[in-house]
Amino acid sequence: MSVVQDFVPLKNDVLLRAARGEKTEFVPVWVMRQAGRYLPEFREVRQHHDFFQICRTPELACEITLQPIRRFNLDAAIIFSDILVIPQALGMEVTMAPGEGPVFTKPLEKPADVKTVLNHDVDVKTELKYVYDAITLTRRQLDGKVPLLGFVGAPWTLMAYMIEGKGSKTQSQAKKWLYQHPIQSHELLELLTKVIVNHLVEQVKAGAQMVQVFDTSAGYLPQQMFDQFSKPYLLKIATQVKETLKSLDIEPVPMVVFAKDAHYSLEDLGKSRDFYDIVSLDWTMDPKKSRQRVGDGITLQGNLDPCALYSDADTIDYLVENMVTEFGTRSYIANLGHGIYPDVKPEAMNTFVNAVHKHSRALNRNAK
Amino acid sequence: MSVVQDFVPLKNDVLLRAARGEKTEFVPVWVMRQAGRYLPEFREVRQHHDFFQICRTPELACEITLQPIRRFNLDAAIIFSDILVIPQALGMEVTMAPGEGPVFTKPLEKPADVKTVLNHDVDVKTELKYVYDAITLTRRQLDGKVPLLGFVGAPWTLMAYMIEGKGSKTQSQAKKWLYQHPIQSHELLELLTKVIVNHLVEQVKAGAQMVQVFDTSAGYLPQQMFDQFSKPYLLKIATQVKETLKSLDIEPVPMVVFAKDAHYSLEDLGKSRDFYDIVSLDWTMDPKKSRQRVGDGITLQGNLDPCALYSDADTIDYLVENMVTEFGTRSYIANLGHGIYPDVKPEAMNTFVNAVHKHSRALNRNAK
Repeated sequence: MSVVQDFVPLKNDVLLRAARGEKTEFVPVWVMRQAGRYLPEFREVRQHHDFFQICRTPELACEITLQPIRRFNLDAAIIFSDILVIPQALGMEVTMAPGEGPVFTKPLEKPADVKTVLNHDVDVKTELKYVYDAITLTRRQLDGKVPLLGFVGAPWTLMAYMIEGKGSKTQSQAKKWLYQHPIQSHELLELLTKVIVNHLVEQVKAGAQMVQVFDTSAGYLPQQMFDQFSKPYLLKIATQVKETLKSLDIEPVPMVVFAKDAHYSLEDLGKSRDFYDIVSLDWTMDPKKSRQRVGDGITLQGNLDPCALYSDADTIDYLVENMVTEFGTRSYIANLGHGIYPDVKPEAMNTFVNAVHKHSRALNRNAK
Repeated sequence: MSVVQDFVPLKNDVLLRAARGEKTEFVPVWVMRQAGRYLPEFREVRQHHDFFQICRTPELACEITLQPIRRFNLDAAIIFSDILVIPQALGMEVTMAPGEGPVFTKPLEKPADVKTVLNHDVDVKTELKYVYDAITLTRRQLDGKVPLLGFVGAPWTLMAYMIEGKGSKTQSQAKKWLYQHPIQSHELLELLTKVIVNHLVEQVKAGAQMVQVFDTSAGYLPQQMFDQFSKPYLLKIATQVKETLKSLDIEPVPMVVFAKDAHYSLEDLGKSRDFYDIVSLDWTMDPKKSRQRVGDGITLQGNLDPCALYSDADTIDYLVENMVTEFGTRSYIANLGHGIYPDVKPEAMNTFVNAVHKHSRALNRNAK
């Protein structure tokens, strides 16, 4: 297998080794939305630039991506981007409404819109070139300090956004499509899957060293609907990305799946490294029971309650010690159970990251 | 044990028998929020009356409660009221914002507010007399057709509302209290528990024949937080209501607990009829696995995805047949996995209710 580009070797490859299930000196840690509003230097950049303008400007996306890496002993960077760049590439307009989150100017209203509104022949190499440029630039700027992660939104989660048009507490309009228009829903999900696979492959070609698929809206579905409308596409994404990379003579990267609130899906998503190498858990999942359910074959990631970072330093340290002890130090990547909240203090993030390292090193020492 | 008041005997007691785990000819069914916006006759009343005005006017609450009973072959009525009548009774102002849901004029901002804002000596017999009057009036109007249910919000769910002030996708401000002010949080939860117990006892004295505790926000908590801040109060409510009723020489009524999205809590909440007789399941829970987890000792309730009612009649019938077959016809009450949505067609509700009866009768026949 060839290397994708001529990058410097990694100085800290603990995350990638944990992702592959290899022994590590300590548990690696990164945090979903680690480059985000809780950092004053992020808010500073946002004062001068629109959210999606940052995504589309490689220098800005790179700068934002590096901000948490400068501050904390994180074991990975994750490219600053958004799951909604794919609906944008397909021709939909999305803006970031202050205090409300992303809003679609014209959400999909009826199944016919799938054919008429969306560009089925989108070439992500052109439309999302800004993401790949940002990844390559950031990978060079990181200079091998830690690995760089890429990501996408899962088909069902993107479909839900494209129909709801904004955040929803029930996703009932998107779910209505699944029940009323199953065939057209599958067509949309197929289209999204194709674009997602391409987007992930291009991210890896640009320098992403691990990629995560975010199915944030998975838990809105009952298992039988998840099994029909989400799971097959999630599994297809993993196999197609790995096959495509192999066919291009590029070494496949570890792949993470995060099906938030879909507690019932753990066995299916974590059944084999032929699909996902890592399953990311939300904070409702018990570490030990989750490990029993998937066996030792895959790596688990997660899952401290994001609100735990509102606690004082001693409490965070205590909760992290519990978490790391429960998960164990092998085949485990520490993270929160979802993205970090904007009103968390940066010091709490620091405490969290350092506590993961401290307690996992101690556990490894005591195990000898 | 004495009867609470001189009401006529029940003509249809299938729900109460299923609640106690007794054999029934068919599976009883009711639906959360069955008296609601999906009914044109409800919307008609709402055009002339504010939401909380209806709650506070026994004749209107009674009329709304009876609307779905006139239309459908439901096996229970549930009094039209709201979980937020308790924060109101404690002195907080709540209004219903069109399209947004309930909004608190002044949410709790800091722990000191618990002492200064809330009336700790509230007498629900006075403050919530309108609920009990509505229950007694409705019980008489029902004339024994089906049993009448009462309900409350659980302590954690009410606390979350009182702090967030409205619906929230993360409940992060309320959860922040749990992490930053655990002692004051427990004080608030204790206060709410006391009022909830009194409110449930009074509902039973007024004529409620089964009661449900809604912990709609349970799943925002990781298990260790649920175990500290929700579960103890839920269990206390069940034991104290039952003990108080016994001490008053009133026969305890079946009690339901609904801890939405707290999949990890099933064993704890369903461990014995000494606590809850019925555990209500959201749509992410597998019927057979749920039954295995709690054993045969208690009754299960649920759990069709509310969005399934967007399907055509054949699909609803098919999904109900699956559901009833999976749950079985014993110790089971059919319901949705959460409240019915406002844009569901009344005919879909009719299909749902009749399908439960049809398929459970068929299953019972075939079992002979």
